Amino acid sequence: MGITFGGPIADFAYAHVSGVLEPAILNHSVRVWLLADHLGRQQGVDGTEREALAVACLFHDAGTAATYDGPQRFEVEGADAARAFLANNDWPEPLIQKVWEAVALHTSPGIAERMGALPRLVRQAVLADFGRTDLVEYGDDESLLSGIARFPRLDIEKVLGDAVVAQAVRSPHKAPPSSWPGGLLAAHRANPGHVGVNPAF
Amino acid sequence: MGITFGGPIADFAYAHVSGVLEPAILNHSVRVWLLADHLGRQQGVDGTEREALAVACLFHDAGTAATYDGPQRFEVEGADAARAFLANNDWPEPLIQKVWEAVALHTSPGIAERMGALPRLVRQAVLADFGRTDLVEYGDDESLLSGIARFPRLDIEKVLGDAVVAQAVRSPHKAPPSSWPGGLLAAHRANPGHVGVNPAF
Repeated sequence: MGITFGGPIADFAYAHVSGVLEPAILNHSVRVWLLADHLGRQQGVDGTEREALAVACLFHDAGTAATYDGPQRFEVEGADAARAFLANNDWPEPLIQKVWEAVALHTSPGIAERMGALPRLVRQAVLADFGRTDLVEYGDDESLLSGIARFPRLDIEKVLGDAVVAQAVRSPHKAPPSSWPGGLLAAHRANPGHVGVNPAF
Repeated sequence: MGITFGGPIADFAYAHVSGVLEPAILNHSVRVWLLADHLGRQQGVDGTEREALAVACLFHDAGTAATYDGPQRFEVEGADAARAFLANNDWPEPLIQKVWEAVALHTSPGIAERMGALPRLVRQAVLADFGRTDLVEYGDDESLLSGIARFPRLDIEKVLGDAVVAQAVRSPHKAPPSSWPGGLLAAHRANPGHVGVNPAF
């Protein structure tokens, strides 16, 4: 595919999530990696930390996969999936914990940004891929933009919102109040016939 | 006042927050400490970690105080206030970080519970004080119940919800979507004339 994720474990992580994620969510996860890595390299994130950032980006929506549809909110199920994957690959616990936090907190506004490099970069890249932040800092990098363009959006906002809601409809405890899944579920219940992107996305 | 917070720094923390918190929020914070400590001692939390738990409980709503009404959501402002207080008292950084996380994450459902002892205990105690959890585990402890009874509720649900909303009305960035302050602000805006406890509390 002509893209590198910073190391062999992250390449293996890509192979893993590409088998379980919907195509739109897989492409989004790769774009998030490209955006996060672009920012991260400007801030000196390299080596093992860079590879950990790639794993966090690739797993950040893993909780939407059927195989990881457990009882917890999808962000935490995805974090646990990343933890299990990295523990199987003998990564050190402190780095695993930062990946866990980056995945678990990626929908937590104002908190992820304060929890260190990995949670901050994943959060910023997710917001950027959804157009929620000023893209000026990325805008003049032709290789970044052409890289991103190789992973089509495939209606990601609708696909991701619907995936989270589908899980929450079956298991409302996955979507507590004061959470992103909770807001999506409430909007769905307020207007179950709504067509298009969930209004709370 | 006949209550101990587990050490001199926590006693000092009580003196500090008692000067800046509304009485209802101060009493709530002390009850949260009594509940968290009751659970924590059953789980072997003692020594410096127990004192850190007390500081986290006492500061968990410090972001509602006028003196800590900065640009971030109140949970993070309170976490920063606790960090500054503990840094002034030369506590070790890893323990300060756990206090920061316990305060910052206390409104984050399903995440605080997974971030270690301090965030989990503060979250569980907050939910218990608001009647959101089964109180059976506390119910047969007469000294706990009589201790709690010494700190009247003073309409805490209304006072706390209104305090968070008042800040958010002035600075909406403090109440982003997918956050507890965001839900309170949205409920307020949907029905500004509502009397009583905020419906999203």
